[in-house]
Amino acid sequence: MAKQGLLIVISGFSGAGKGTIVKQLVSQYGYSLSISCTTRSPREGEVDGKDYHFKTREEFKRLIDYNGFIEYAQYVENYYGTPRAFVEEEMAKGNHVILEIEVQGAMNIKRQYPEAVLLFITAPSAGELKARLEGRGSEDTKAVEKRMKQAIVESNSMSTYDYIVVNDDLETCVKHIHDIIDAETSKSCHKVDFIEQIKQELKEIGKE
Amino acid sequence: MAKQGLLIVISGFSGAGKGTIVKQLVSQYGYSLSISCTTRSPREGEVDGKDYHFKTREEFKRLIDYNGFIEYAQYVENYYGTPRAFVEEEMAKGNHVILEIEVQGAMNIKRQYPEAVLLFITAPSAGELKARLEGRGSEDTKAVEKRMKQAIVESNSMSTYDYIVVNDDLETCVKHIHDIIDAETSKSCHKVDFIEQIKQELKEIGKE
Repeated sequence: MAKQGLLIVISGFSGAGKGTIVKQLVSQYGYSLSISCTTRSPREGEVDGKDYHFKTREEFKRLIDYNGFIEYAQYVENYYGTPRAFVEEEMAKGNHVILEIEVQGAMNIKRQYPEAVLLFITAPSAGELKARLEGRGSEDTKAVEKRMKQAIVESNSMSTYDYIVVNDDLETCVKHIHDIIDAETSKSCHKVDFIEQIKQELKEIGKE
Repeated sequence: MAKQGLLIVISGFSGAGKGTIVKQLVSQYGYSLSISCTTRSPREGEVDGKDYHFKTREEFKRLIDYNGFIEYAQYVENYYGTPRAFVEEEMAKGNHVILEIEVQGAMNIKRQYPEAVLLFITAPSAGELKARLEGRGSEDTKAVEKRMKQAIVESNSMSTYDYIVVNDDLETCVKHIHDIIDAETSKSCHKVDFIEQIKQELKEIGKE
């Protein structure tokens, strides 16, 4: 049996650097990135199939009916979902799949895939998080405040994640996440076939 | 609060290379190695305080009475135990402590320290394990057979370990164990203080 890939869920505070980290994990280490479906309209510069799969509400609902999502949720009036086919096919090929999703979606994933690895990315401190959001320049004071309020809510779910990863230095952080994923592959729950095989071999040698 | 070190339990088949791996982890990465107490007589070349702390039965029993062991067990007519003071002091200093102990002791540790990291070291296959034991030269056919029988029993506990580490190439294996331990430090259960701190900071900034 081919080795199954891992399901890696990455969440974190806005401004913690999730997006850049995920891009690096994909480009440096070749992880497969799941692209979410959404019913919201593309923003300027967003590319269909790269940033999101943009769907009409009708298309999205049909996908729900056909069990096409491993998780989906409604935010404000838009739907967001993780397509099942890509995730399951990649994992079956032995590729590790990264989902960059919100806290609510992450919890849904953990219920369905208890062996999924949940990582929460944070800045070293709340002050640093605020400084990074302000430093973006693209967001006014109100937007920064909104994101900081959202962070308070999200922080209540941090302890339900498997790992808390502090993004202090990007390169170190990306390498550390890769090491975490590599360590996870040696978890005994992912070694069930190997354990069975060696038990069988030991018994056969014992009979000789 | 200073960061607490981790408790690392290493078990594995005889012939899988545990001893060499542990030595490398200590010398390359500076992990603290717990030395067991035993009532058995020193074998040729064994040094008191380095290989074991050699104790009389009376001394050992007094240590049991004073809660001096985090785990102990009797094998044949000898006692073996892990001294509590060293382990707890090193962990309090923030040092990761390695225990190289048998399956039974490992299970005792996990009950008392649910956050202990249990690693099981194995050769890539049962055939390779046998070849390594035979290659040692120091053991006759009967001793090899005895160790292979013991491996059958131990293999039934493999799935209760957190990680199964295949020792194919020594250097790769040692590095992989170091990465596993490094990944473990980011587990959310070891980040309780950090999570509380960032939650507090976020709330304070929210009030401003």
